[in-house]
Amino acid sequence: MKLNCDLGESYGAWRMGQDDQVMPLIDMANVACGFHAGDPSVMQKTVALAAKHGVEIGAHPSYHDLAGFGRRSISHSPEEIHALILYQLGALQGLCRAEGLTLSYVKPHGALNNDMMRDMSTLEAVMTAVRSYQQDLPLMLPVTVKHEQHRKLADYVGLPILLEAFADRAYDDEGQLVSRRLPGAVHQSADKIVNQAVSFAKNGGVYSSSGNWLTLPADSLCVHGDNEAALSGIRAIRKALATN
Amino acid sequence: MKLNCDLGESYGAWRMGQDDQVMPLIDMANVACGFHAGDPSVMQKTVALAAKHGVEIGAHPSYHDLAGFGRRSISHSPEEIHALILYQLGALQGLCRAEGLTLSYVKPHGALNNDMMRDMSTLEAVMTAVRSYQQDLPLMLPVTVKHEQHRKLADYVGLPILLEAFADRAYDDEGQLVSRRLPGAVHQSADKIVNQAVSFAKNGGVYSSSGNWLTLPADSLCVHGDNEAALSGIRAIRKALATN
Amino acid sequence: MKLNCDLGESYGAWRMGQDDQVMPLIDMANVACGFHAGDPSVMQKTVALAAKHGVEIGAHPSYHDLAGFGRRSISHSPEEIHALILYQLGALQGLCRAEGLTLSYVKPHGALNNDMMRDMSTLEAVMTAVRSYQQDLPLMLPVTVKHEQHRKLADYVGLPILLEAFADRAYDDEGQLVSRRLPGAVHQSADKIVNQAVSFAKNGGVYSSSGNWLTLPADSLCVHGDNEAALSGIRAIRKALATN
Amino acid sequence: MKLNCDLGESYGAWRMGQDDQVMPLIDMANVACGFHAGDPSVMQKTVALAAKHGVEIGAHPSYHDLAGFGRRSISHSPEEIHALILYQLGALQGLCRAEGLTLSYVKPHGALNNDMMRDMSTLEAVMTAVRSYQQDLPLMLPVTVKHEQHRKLADYVGLPILLEAFADRAYDDEGQLVSRRLPGAVHQSADKIVNQAVSFAKNGGVYSSSGNWLTLPADSLCVHGDNEAALSGIRAIRKALATN
Repeated sequence: MKLNCDLGESYGAWRMGQDDQVMPLIDMANVACGFHAGDPSVMQKTVALAAKHGVEIGAHPSYHDLAGFGRRSISHSPEEIHALILYQLGALQGLCRAEGLTLSYVKPHGALNNDMMRDMSTLEAVMTAVRSYQQDLPLMLPVTVKHEQHRKLADYVGLPILLEAFADRAYDDEGQLVSRRLPGAVHQSADKIVNQAVSFAKNGGVYSSSGNWLTLPADSLCVHGDNEAALSGIRAIRKALATN
Repeated sequence: MKLNCDLGESYGAWRMGQDDQVMPLIDMANVACGFHAGDPSVMQKTVALAAKHGVEIGAHPSYHDLAGFGRRSISHSPEEIHALILYQLGALQGLCRAEGLTLSYVKPHGALNNDMMRDMSTLEAVMTAVRSYQQDLPLMLPVTVKHEQHRKLADYVGLPILLEAFADRAYDDEGQLVSRRLPGAVHQSADKIVNQAVSFAKNGGVYSSSGNWLTLPADSLCVHGDNEAALSGIRAIRKALATN
Repeated sequence: MKLNCDLGESYGAWRMGQDDQVMPLIDMANVACGFHAGDPSVMQKTVALAAKHGVEIGAHPSYHDLAGFGRRSISHSPEEIHALILYQLGALQGLCRAEGLTLSYVKPHGALNNDMMRDMSTLEAVMTAVRSYQQDLPLMLPVTVKHEQHRKLADYVGLPILLEAFADRAYDDEGQLVSRRLPGAVHQSADKIVNQAVSFAKNGGVYSSSGNWLTLPADSLCVHGDNEAALSGIRAIRKALATN
Repeated sequence: MKLNCDLGESYGAWRMGQDDQVMPLIDMANVACGFHAGDPSVMQKTVALAAKHGVEIGAHPSYHDLAGFGRRSISHSPEEIHALILYQLGALQGLCRAEGLTLSYVKPHGALNNDMMRDMSTLEAVMTAVRSYQQDLPLMLPVTVKHEQHRKLADYVGLPILLEAFADRAYDDEGQLVSRRLPGAVHQSADKIVNQAVSFAKNGGVYSSSGNWLTLPADSLCVHGDNEAALSGIRAIRKALATN
């Protein structure tokens, strides 16, 4: 069970995240590609940092919206989505090449991720774009109860996928993350977070917030490293996964 | 003597150039990479059009300045230039990959081109960036009387170069284009343009505006296709080159 | 019955529209404010041109999306809409001040216009923003069969409104424009366009595409001036309105 | 002797500065206008915060360069500078109007500020633009030994000016800030900073880093509030100015 984290989200003079401290703790770095964060210089530093720590590099493409940090849905045709994904994958790969590296996977960011999970035609546009770029480059998407449907679409397109889960978020009965607006959406207890990580790794699922078992086979856990508590959380998850 | 032209300079709803008509007439397309022109969808269409006509694709990277169309100099560190070139080369390559194509060369645009020709450290930063991307990817730069100096720098960096000349512009005694602000900077006579093209191709140089011979060995001629007269000009050059 | 037209939609090196020719023919110029078109220099030229011809200046604010020309819906909170409208109104007013002019009205552009017509809470956010800027600055919106409902909301907010209609577009039974994807959406016949303009001006409405009468009281007609035929159309409408 | 500080330099999800803590300590807020920082929502919050604390609002216009934070020089014509200043002044004023406020002064940011201090024709373009906007709106510029020359230009243009000085930076014999690249450029000692502030306020100048007296009549001191030490520094300056 690999740990992935969104990194490289600074932009020019604006700093975000603690990439130096998070990178040594994770396996896969989702690197912003300039459309929601990550100017070329930030991307270069992020790629170099990933190289130093032997971390896999994933493209983290987004709608083009710096002021909205890629979190606002923007209506696009499938053709536009195709082109903006190819552009961003290539751009990050350009910075990887200079380090002798290559992309390991693709994980769409923010509203683009939400939109593709809500709408199968958007998901197909994303998959088709990634496959056009490189037919064996996996698309990472959140695992929900519809994961078999998603895998079928990926098989149809001819693209491998990776499923990711969250250790610190409550799941509803659809296997979707409980909205942050609702109470209990984000686990505060360190124990709860570690236990959920272990449950995904060992049991292949978790209990929903209403107490029903969800079979959710995950390849990777998405973690956050925004503050000291979050870094401790990642370390605790790593330790628990290693010993369980 | 190949003909190159700046293409793919539309952006969203704004049209520029007559790419459909120019593409069949040229050998090398300098494709805008999103920083001065060319959103991802425009880039995709431009790449597909080049593919259709068997035209080589060159990256046409720029400073990031849509409102200035990349024509305004922006002060950058060598590291920033390195990163912005890798980003744009990769981005265009991302769109090429989906067509089964690859970049053939790199020609910086506008103010970035001017700045690198004015300042050897900027030129070295550009060369180093291109080489980091791909060590045998040629950089195209304007041929001037300093072409040997430029070639030496390229040899030092370890990068092939291509030299380009202009058929429709007067040259001063330094082998630089006469500023457009001065009279006689742009040739209006179709004969004069064709003769200058042939002179570059057959004699390896041209006479400067003050009548001195300039030895300027060019690999490619830069042409423009903005209007019907310009298209006729390209056809006349092609014909003259084929028969001389 | 005043004629309004979207102008100032160039951006940097990209030209759009024939502002020089349209401006003398209209009464109200909807001037792009930099978010979908119109860099500051273009805005300055547009304002000066409007001043020269005694044309009223309306702000034409948009979502921030140059590549999409403001035609893509972007999800925003009411607070974000409030701020982006104030910003753009002020920006255009800044350029007007230097000419001794002031804004006469506000007409949202593209997807922002569509979204406010689809969703009353967005419309209220727009109205509230305009009123915060200047309480007697009218908001121009398309007239539909819901125009009384729109006026009630405007009264509630405390903002004057202007209703605009289209001479060259077919209307459905809701008083909404027939989608451009459907046949007959755009009138091609010059007579039909002129007759529809006169019908709005003299009869206060038009027949829908299915033949039902629609009472649609319009204060202004939106015209387009993209090509020579369009310019002739504007002249024909002016003449017909003057003589009927 | 009023204290001014650059504020409102966040952008979307990126936070910069400690505006909540700095605002109560200063007299004049230089508010970013969207071109180097400050999206409309950030500007709105900054203006509201200034209103709450009775702080004067100054426009802080910049070259358009988010990735460079306005710190990179971009070549512009005087006409372009004119337009971009009007745009940004108006935009900020748009957000001020909604709070019943108005601009008190203008202080160019970063590279635009540097460029106007290096080149009198750029300074004249800036002054002319501000005067076009509002003829009694003061331009704030750094005080140097050339302050009389700057004032003469302002008188010629017909614009009031405000001169600002720095308490925490060493001055060279031209009355210019010692480059940050040189040792001793930034005072570390709290005493030294307070003493320099008092010297500007009471003696109308400071000693240069080489020990020569500089008569530099300042209307305002520029302070920074990036961290806890900086906040303490502002408080110490306020106290010293009040009691000296």
